[in-house]
Amino acid sequence: MLRKLLAVSITAALALNATNAAAETVSTERHKVSVNTITDKLNKPWGMAFLPSGELLVTEKSGTLRRVTRDGAVSDALSGVPSVVDKSQGGLLDVAVDPNFADNQFVYISYSEADPAGGEGTSTAVMRAKLSDNGLTDGKVIFRGAPKYKSGAHFGSRLVFAPDGHLFITLGDRYSAMDDAQTLDNHHGKVVRIKPDGSVPADNPFVGKDDALPEIWSYGHRNVQGAAIHPTTGKLWTVEHGPKGGDEINIPDAGKNYGWPIATYGVDYDGSIISDETHVEGTVQPHYYWVPSIATSNMIFYTGDQFPAWQGDLLVAALKGSHVARLDLEGDRVMHEETLFEDAVKQRIRDIEQGPDGYIYLITDDRAGQLIQIKPAE
Amino acid sequence: MLRKLLAVSITAALALNATNAAAETVSTERHKVSVNTITDKLNKPWGMAFLPSGELLVTEKSGTLRRVTRDGAVSDALSGVPSVVDKSQGGLLDVAVDPNFADNQFVYISYSEADPAGGEGTSTAVMRAKLSDNGLTDGKVIFRGAPKYKSGAHFGSRLVFAPDGHLFITLGDRYSAMDDAQTLDNHHGKVVRIKPDGSVPADNPFVGKDDALPEIWSYGHRNVQGAAIHPTTGKLWTVEHGPKGGDEINIPDAGKNYGWPIATYGVDYDGSIISDETHVEGTVQPHYYWVPSIATSNMIFYTGDQFPAWQGDLLVAALKGSHVARLDLEGDRVMHEETLFEDAVKQRIRDIEQGPDGYIYLITDDRAGQLIQIKPAE
Ligand SMILES: [Ca+2]
Ligand SMILES: [Ca+2]
Repeated sequence: MLRKLLAVSITAALALNATNAAAETVSTERHKVSVNTITDKLNKPWGMAFLPSGELLVTEKSGTLRRVTRDGAVSDALSGVPSVVDKSQGGLLDVAVDPNFADNQFVYISYSEADPAGGEGTSTAVMRAKLSDNGLTDGKVIFRGAPKYKSGAHFGSRLVFAPDGHLFITLGDRYSAMDDAQTLDNHHGKVVRIKPDGSVPADNPFVGKDDALPEIWSYGHRNVQGAAIHPTTGKLWTVEHGPKGGDEINIPDAGKNYGWPIATYGVDYDGSIISDETHVEGTVQPHYYWVPSIATSNMIFYTGDQFPAWQGDLLVAALKGSHVARLDLEGDRVMHEETLFEDAVKQRIRDIEQGPDGYIYLITDDRAGQLIQIKPAE
Repeated sequence: MLRKLLAVSITAALALNATNAAAETVSTERHKVSVNTITDKLNKPWGMAFLPSGELLVTEKSGTLRRVTRDGAVSDALSGVPSVVDKSQGGLLDVAVDPNFADNQFVYISYSEADPAGGEGTSTAVMRAKLSDNGLTDGKVIFRGAPKYKSGAHFGSRLVFAPDGHLFITLGDRYSAMDDAQTLDNHHGKVVRIKPDGSVPADNPFVGKDDALPEIWSYGHRNVQGAAIHPTTGKLWTVEHGPKGGDEINIPDAGKNYGWPIATYGVDYDGSIISDETHVEGTVQPHYYWVPSIATSNMIFYTGDQFPAWQGDLLVAALKGSHVARLDLEGDRVMHEETLFEDAVKQRIRDIEQGPDGYIYLITDDRAGQLIQIKPAE
């Protein structure tokens, strides 16, 4: 009995050190894992990125950016964040760290920006700034979605750097402007590729074309909130929300049309035959899709040492399902899907990242938003 | 009220015409379908094949072969079926109709054969015979699995003709002889390729090799009970049962090793990390796999006009799940899996075929075994 009491009090002390982390052990097909809630002191966190120091930068939708340590210490709001339109799906969205951060201290944030001219429209914008101890300085808007449009929905966005140093920005169709996804004179429903200073790479597919915005990399997307670079091919993979069913993984190639809204796997839940086309000439089929929707947020290719059986797998986080879909890949081909953590995570998962420690980190979309660390069970 | 009564009695009359078929309407992602039980007068049916007349040949595991019409009339047992070892998983198994049946009246049956020398071992054998009005004549055993082995399990088998006229026979590892799947001096855990007269094609991969049986096409399989030819590539696809999880679709290439039992995705359900390897040098990864097992029986590529949205899809029947897994393919790649009919079919599905009418036909593994017809709902 004494031994048992002692064990309990030691466990309690360790738990306090880890800022009251709640841990749950979960069995999966290949690994037994521990799902640890590191903190629940985040207010609707949206995006996160690891700094070379091993700390996280975490955005909160309301417009605050914080440093968070891997044992759950949450900083005060950092200064220098531009004002954002925190309304419906809009707000402060993703954050990315420059591949050369050690040299240049640049970070990138995406957000819903009001019309500087005073109109009611908004668009997704991206700012580059220097990160100092207290916050952001030298902020410069390097991308501004066009046109400004009055809608609270479908801003995207995710920021990822290609191996060649270009920045991909994934965008949404702004919902009621969905038809814009098929025309090239706007940024709605596009993936955009720019240089980190905001200039347009000369080899972008629509540079010099009439009636086409030169930042566009690919089009026909709905609302792309997940993106990752394949670790061996170096290619961009994206995941987007479908309308009602039809969440899609794509491997966007330069200049290609991914179909929305003229081709979709979205379905009617009354069971009737769908009139929507799934195959339309000139559009690319999804690489993989979900019906019904799991409401995909971000995704990563897992490359760490902590979960050897998951190396090379694509881990896709889901808002609706509160789970992570593990896609076992052979080359690019999906061989198998496993649903992970659905009973252990109780909130919508908004972002997923791999830590420098090889653990997997999740943040959840809640006013008591959590940072969750996934590690091998003892 | 009169109108309602009239409607009811008309519906009842139609149902009687269709030999008391029980019909259920089911909504799926792309089509609303009617699931009709045509008959439940089959005793543990195992395999079926359509004759050019539009009638079915159906095997029953106990050793009977019957003609069944698409409105559910079941014939008496046909004569001329060889004696089979109807024990555990063994018995009369698959049936196939010669591509040139109109000219030669040949049909093929696979079955568990006793040792002609009187030993306790069994193996899968294949007989070719002529089909006359009353039964089979001129039967000739064109394949005999080696060695005879004492086990009641894992006989395979499925019979499919390649576009070039060769016959593929899929086999099992006989369970306790699983290690044999990795050596070429036996037929356990192999896919075999022969000519319709039983002779060995000169271009089989192991012809002329020492210690290798010349009928072997591919090896390292566990228990292959499903096979189909891809309608555009002409390639053989197979589906096999995994141990506990790890049911696999493969696209067996000549001479290749598909891993069993040295590489498998089978899992322990106690949640511990699996020691079994999934990747072993010299073995081919599955094209697609299921964990946990759905217990795959047969599969078809759907090519009919009745379900336009399913054209080109791979439909895999499941014993355990009592469902059909629809795999939406783009080229060979699986883009999406849908589970069909799971609430409408109450029995294990043992075989699936496409009818000359473009409808989908299922038989179920039960002593009151059903023939089920899937057609578009009105
Ligand atoms: Ca699409
Ligand atoms: Ca295998």
